[in-house]
Amino acid sequence: MDVEKVNSMDFGEFVDVFGNVIERCPLIAAAVWSQRPFSDLEDLEKHFFAFIDALPQSGQEGILRCHPDLAGRELQRGALTAESLREHSGAGLMSLGAAERLQLAELNAQYRARFGFPFVLAVRLGDREAVPRELARRLQCPPAQELRAALGEVKKIGRLRLADLLGSPPAQQ
Amino acid sequence: MDVEKVNSMDFGEFVDVFGNVIERCPLIAAAVWSQRPFSDLEDLEKHFFAFIDALPQSGQEGILRCHPDLAGRELQRGALTAESLREHSGAGLMSLGAAERLQLAELNAQYRARFGFPFVLAVRLGDREAVPRELARRLQCPPAQELRAALGEVKKIGRLRLADLLGSPPAQQ
Repeated sequence: MDVEKVNSMDFGEFVDVFGNVIERCPLIAAAVWSQRPFSDLEDLEKHFFAFIDALPQSGQEGILRCHPDLAGRELQRGALTAESLREHSGAGLMSLGAAERLQLAELNAQYRARFGFPFVLAVRLGDREAVPRELARRLQCPPAQELRAALGEVKKIGRLRLADLLGSPPAQQ
Repeated sequence: MDVEKVNSMDFGEFVDVFGNVIERCPLIAAAVWSQRPFSDLEDLEKHFFAFIDALPQSGQEGILRCHPDLAGRELQRGALTAESLREHSGAGLMSLGAAERLQLAELNAQYRARFGFPFVLAVRLGDREAVPRELARRLQCPPAQELRAALGEVKKIGRLRLADLLGSPPAQQ
């Protein structure tokens, strides 16, 4: 899909295609449509990220709270979005043993209790062994630093999803 | 449900219950959770509305773009949210004749083309005859005035949905 195609979309088409670039936040894609036309993938991405950065802290936390626990209840009950399911699958998180699932469930619960949002990680950039390691490490971070780190992961996930949709390599950091 | 129950919810429960107070915008409920504890229904409502008011214009338009056309394609293909389906049903919008559906489809398309978001109306406060009449009237409004009017309807819908959830009469304006 090229950028002319993107720029020709009405808002309904745009939200259908880009509504889950930020997990379960079609509001953000629907807002970004106001900024068209876009010059390229990087420009489109820039508007998604600028919207996130401009939200009050409660809104940024709200974005995180729309994410599932990694390898958590949504996976078990088949309630992941298509994008998240693909990312779980690619990272090998569909085939964890009971002990690994229990370990992750406990770490996820500790993380949620400490920060008030779920642990978010761009798992396509790592492997399944990295998940509990990163979770345990980030559990120790100060809350303000951890909010920034988590939003950084949201953006990495969004960048990869946008690149998938547009059939291009992700824009450089 | 009383406010103590609401204040005791973790964010997952809160988003499960209040995630569609603003149509297809769970991000907003997820953000409002940051403001707990709430003193009463009116206080909870105030935080939903304050979040909407603080968004940039693109975000406010984004909220509107997450709404379905009234008696439109989402109704036809069974893709309305439970709340919206109930509101459509209560207003008699499930049983329109072909001529009425066509009239609404044409007015909805004109409205979308003029304003860049769908026509939103708190149909529980009117009747099915009011829908095309209000649509035709609001089509003539200046865009800035119409954005305010449309967000006012989003808030009326949110107020009624919150009152349903909490089992209370809606807070006074």
